[in-house]
Amino acid sequence: MKIEYEPIGVVRSPFSKRAGMPIQPSRGKGVQATIELRPKLVAGLADLEGFSHIVLLYHFHHSSGYDLRVIPFLDTEKRGVFATRAPRRPNPIGLSVVRLLRIEGSILYIEDVDLLDGTPVLDIKPYVPDFDEPVDVRIGWLAAVHRRPAESDDRFG
Amino acid sequence: MKIEYEPIGVVRSPFSKRAGMPIQPSRGKGVQATIELRPKLVAGLADLEGFSHIVLLYHFHHSSGYDLRVIPFLDTEKRGVFATRAPRRPNPIGLSVVRLLRIEGSILYIEDVDLLDGTPVLDIKPYVPDFDEPVDVRIGWLAAVHRRPAESDDRFG
Repeated sequence: MKIEYEPIGVVRSPFSKRAGMPIQPSRGKGVQATIELRPKLVAGLADLEGFSHIVLLYHFHHSSGYDLRVIPFLDTEKRGVFATRAPRRPNPIGLSVVRLLRIEGSILYIEDVDLLDGTPVLDIKPYVPDFDEPVDVRIGWLAAVHRRPAESDDRFG
Repeated sequence: MKIEYEPIGVVRSPFSKRAGMPIQPSRGKGVQATIELRPKLVAGLADLEGFSHIVLLYHFHHSSGYDLRVIPFLDTEKRGVFATRAPRRPNPIGLSVVRLLRIEGSILYIEDVDLLDGTPVLDIKPYVPDFDEPVDVRIGWLAAVHRRPAESDDRFG
């Protein structure tokens, strides 16, 4: 079974390659970028500016292939790929929660960005704590390492 | 440009139709389900059990087509589709944060579920508050309505 999507827009960001890019929005504070939405979809942006944050789903367009065990950016041991946020995944879909600054026509101005220039955007959703924030969270192997500041390197190509 | 994915597994849940199903995991408390991962991907689950919650990305397989303005389950007014979590979207990708109870072989036991039986799963990621929880969040039109308990009905087919 194949599932086919068509990008709804594209990211324009200061990052043209993965090395040196923040690895998560929380580490990309202040970095600004835009999303150029396909003009025919602009009516779908109504009411979105009331939300301070949006969930972006996008295609890791620089990733190809995957390994089931990978050494994540924040670690030194191999982990199962589904226990990591590594971009080389069976379906290379990325998820980032970013700050929405404003919308002008088909352009969304966003901040706190860990996205490569040219990234195809698959979906935009409002971020809603009541839906998206569970309680009593445990974070496995990341508990020991996740406060380390970190940038990408080129390990995922 | 088309992007093609292949499901990594399938959801088995008590919900065979959308009407009556919880509309978000936070409203599906205690509902249990499983994900049957494709056996060839099992090695990718290593280290995942340390995480209490996972992010599921999946295909809304009962949705077809979309409108750019929709009346969400929680509201009575039309909103831009990207300002809602409605399943009929340009790319019908769903996002749910669910509790991971345990993993047995290729089966993930999950709880707090708002997923239809048979839903094709596209990706599984560890939920990490440091990555996924922004601060100073505003929730737009949902501020007035999002504490209402709610279930799906059949408005999205």
